[in-house]
Amino acid sequence: MISPHLVHFESLVPDTETHARRGRLWTPHGIVETPVFMPVGTVGSVKSLTPDDLYADDVRIILGNTYHLYLRPGHELIRDFGGLHKFINWKGAMLTDSGGFQVFSLKGIRKIEEEGVTFRSHLDGSKHLFTPEKVIGIEEAIGADIIMAFDECPPALESRAYFEKSLARTTRWLHRCNNAWKREQSSLFGIVQGGLFKDLRRRHIEEVCALDLPGFALGGYSVGESPEEMHEGVADCAHLLPADRPRYLMGVGTPVDLVTCTMAGIDMFDCVLPTRTARHGLLYTSQGKVVIKKKALYQRDEGPLDPNCNCYTCRNFSRAYLHHLFITKEILAMRLNSIHNVHYLVTLMARVRKELEQGTFAAFAKEFLNSPAACR
Amino acid sequence: MISPHLVHFESLVPDTETHARRGRLWTPHGIVETPVFMPVGTVGSVKSLTPDDLYADDVRIILGNTYHLYLRPGHELIRDFGGLHKFINWKGAMLTDSGGFQVFSLKGIRKIEEEGVTFRSHLDGSKHLFTPEKVIGIEEAIGADIIMAFDECPPALESRAYFEKSLARTTRWLHRCNNAWKREQSSLFGIVQGGLFKDLRRRHIEEVCALDLPGFALGGYSVGESPEEMHEGVADCAHLLPADRPRYLMGVGTPVDLVTCTMAGIDMFDCVLPTRTARHGLLYTSQGKVVIKKKALYQRDEGPLDPNCNCYTCRNFSRAYLHHLFITKEILAMRLNSIHNVHYLVTLMARVRKELEQGTFAAFAKEFLNSPAACR
Repeated sequence: MISPHLVHFESLVPDTETHARRGRLWTPHGIVETPVFMPVGTVGSVKSLTPDDLYADDVRIILGNTYHLYLRPGHELIRDFGGLHKFINWKGAMLTDSGGFQVFSLKGIRKIEEEGVTFRSHLDGSKHLFTPEKVIGIEEAIGADIIMAFDECPPALESRAYFEKSLARTTRWLHRCNNAWKREQSSLFGIVQGGLFKDLRRRHIEEVCALDLPGFALGGYSVGESPEEMHEGVADCAHLLPADRPRYLMGVGTPVDLVTCTMAGIDMFDCVLPTRTARHGLLYTSQGKVVIKKKALYQRDEGPLDPNCNCYTCRNFSRAYLHHLFITKEILAMRLNSIHNVHYLVTLMARVRKELEQGTFAAFAKEFLNSPAACR
Repeated sequence: MISPHLVHFESLVPDTETHARRGRLWTPHGIVETPVFMPVGTVGSVKSLTPDDLYADDVRIILGNTYHLYLRPGHELIRDFGGLHKFINWKGAMLTDSGGFQVFSLKGIRKIEEEGVTFRSHLDGSKHLFTPEKVIGIEEAIGADIIMAFDECPPALESRAYFEKSLARTTRWLHRCNNAWKREQSSLFGIVQGGLFKDLRRRHIEEVCALDLPGFALGGYSVGESPEEMHEGVADCAHLLPADRPRYLMGVGTPVDLVTCTMAGIDMFDCVLPTRTARHGLLYTSQGKVVIKKKALYQRDEGPLDPNCNCYTCRNFSRAYLHHLFITKEILAMRLNSIHNVHYLVTLMARVRKELEQGTFAAFAKEFLNSPAACR
């Protein structure tokens, strides 16, 4: 354990009506105002976007995926280049997951043991072993400001017996991660699992937060359960995470998820959904979700995608042009759509922060969740 | 025929040693300094690039493809939106080809008659007829600053007898195009054909240039002949086109082609090659062509793609990162590569113009064509 942590958190304005808080996260690569949505740059780019596109969208922190970067270009190459920041020329803050989620998604080609997880690459079938120590080494080579502990992320619908066994091992792995952690510029966050078993979640929070880590995350949501089950689970336990540390809900989510789980006390969110759905022509707007391929609706629509949005796409192009680019499979469609969806979520979180500052968040959240903008 | 033409040309500095000239093209959407390379926006976008990317690359004029835009989104929709400029939000100058090249590429699914060409859409097999009158109507609906006459573009290796017959028809079609042309803001350019038959080219130049059109083009090059044959053909006839009108070489080309054919007296070039090859990882640089997928060469190369280039890609990213993006098939690779290749050709032509102004073009061209930068 390294202390004082380089990544630290300040809760500026706790909400009086919900568990939400307006906060601020200091990192070696700048301040991140919270609650915040973090776009995912899986293999070293937020798909289709340049760093400048992200700065223009007011993105201050992005994710990298340890599993993907370990396979290509390899963490040693990244370290030799002075870290992922330099390799991809990203000047903001950065977080890497532990690869656990990806490795456990490799059904049938991985084996979990006390030592770690043996898996085969989805690219070439080559055999690899991830241990807590190895993963921390990889993450430190990648050099993000925030690195995540190596955990097991079981499907939500696994049995209680399986979770009991898995959680005990994840806790042991967390201690091994903490012992392996050496790099001061990379702050280690612990991850709480437990699926939808509320008592197991609470018990695991106690175990994980017994370590004085710079931040804590809820993992194992959005892995098969319904959104309602996820919301209920997060609402039950997020506020039990330490108030003086950032609370990160991994792999979530949609506009509805962001507002709902902010109420539960979450400060940080990440999800591939807004960029993935953008590439598939599904766009969040203040008037609801737009499925841009719909000819009858959009082929002749001269208006912007979202009249209330100030992103590059909405300032410059019509729905008709976005429809045309999408159905003709022009690459530009993916980029313009991604710029918008990222901007939409970043702007939504800026609005959430403003409402928290004004003490009007609970009313805003209620109104938002009953509006057409409450997309999933 | 409309006169005086809204698009007009001034030869500023004719070269004393070659047929090259430093010129200026006035259009309703700004001045274009010549010689110039024009990127191609086939279906309403220069693939992967926004208008702002193109402005940043100092692009002042782009192309649209009549055949593709006629099929999708349709010229009537474009007209209803106030033209292609507004539809795609491009503020610079614009030129549309006549669709002839595309239609004649549809081997086996088209039929040429005096009236026009019947063809089937490559998208859905639907049957269409392009006549000179219809094509001019489509181009006027699209509303580019420069529109091209509807011609037949035979393969370079067609027989002399075929060319004789085809050229006579193309001349008759040109008169029909000229009679159909009504829109003052769209200036009609005539197209000279004739393959590699020098006498036929010269005769067709006389026939085509007998009409007082605002500009003239050489079509039917880069359609099966070798680069050397193309260079020889262009060198033989380009300078015979009227000196007071812009001379446009259609569908050409590479850095070598641009410099060589500028010597022959060409003012305007277009080609899909720089953006297409960019998407395939082939990059023009001052040090020669870079095949970015080559692992042994570029996986650990920390330098910029071209140390002499000032484009966004070269200012911000290493060859190693471009290699990584390309082999991981990230969409961003296509965009960063396209930004560079377009910038490279635009900058090459800016250099050509400067050398012409200084009276040093012939020496520059000789040196360039003997340097590693003479890519094909």
